Amino acid sequence: MPNRNLRAYIAGFLDGDGCLMAQLVKRSGYIRGYQIRLSIVFYQKKQNKHFLVWLKRYLKHGYIRERNDGMAEYTIVGLKAVKESLIKIYPYLRLKKKLAKIILEISDMPRKLSTKDFLRYCRLADKTAKYTYSKKRTRTVKEVMKYLAKNKILTP
Amino acid sequence: MPNRNLRAYIAGFLDGDGCLMAQLVKRSGYIRGYQIRLSIVFYQKKQNKHFLVWLKRYLKHGYIRERNDGMAEYTIVGLKAVKESLIKIYPYLRLKKKLAKIILEISDMPRKLSTKDFLRYCRLADKTAKYTYSKKRTRTVKEVMKYLAKNKILTP
Repeated sequence: MPNRNLRAYIAGFLDGDGCLMAQLVKRSGYIRGYQIRLSIVFYQKKQNKHFLVWLKRYLKHGYIRERNDGMAEYTIVGLKAVKESLIKIYPYLRLKKKLAKIILEISDMPRKLSTKDFLRYCRLADKTAKYTYSKKRTRTVKEVMKYLAKNKILTP
Repeated sequence: MPNRNLRAYIAGFLDGDGCLMAQLVKRSGYIRGYQIRLSIVFYQKKQNKHFLVWLKRYLKHGYIRERNDGMAEYTIVGLKAVKESLIKIYPYLRLKKKLAKIILEISDMPRKLSTKDFLRYCRLADKTAKYTYSKKRTRTVKEVMKYLAKNKILTP
């Protein structure tokens, strides 16, 4: 398949069955107590694991693991890995395009930034919940702010 | 999106979240008691119905309906409609390619054919169960043959 068709194909597949997420993850080692985690996840029945291997060969990032429930899972985690994978297929996305735009915005978060800016990125992560229909989201910017206040981590 | 990218995108989407089927359907009005029904089905949450409308504009066949469970469903049924839709995206399919090949073979079934040939197509429909992981398939070529024998419909 020529390169552009490949990108369009993967965009269609991600729109149909893939998962694109931004989560706030509690991390004891972090100054601000939380990490913004970006991820792309694809699932397939174990017998179609070869398809995930093929996907990975093209997206170049992430790892594949077999779960205990007969499924194989291909996960790409991290700002840089998600950015480089997502950018390839972004132009062809339809259903997840707005979500992908926010994810790409977050992926540009600098390593060093003020607490105020960090909270801005946390708010962007919160915004994605609207597109992923996440109902059980518990970690939100509110929780991060509570943590910062409690630990006297000042903004900015 | 250029035409080929569009086709690749839809192939990816069908591979991820679409449904491609060949079923034997009991039909009292039919000489041989059964019809071979081909279908392509796409689902989306009601709020993404516009996506199905967009798909339909391109595939040109089928109809969209809103279900009672908050989902919208886009269904393409029939040998000719499925053939003309599927042929557009066939070259780009990956996961459902083998299945699609059998579906296209069935879609070429002539209107008039011998009972022997009809059974050959029924067998092809049975073969698709392997690819759709259908476990509750009850109508098989065995049942059709039983019906034909009982009603003294001779092969060929």
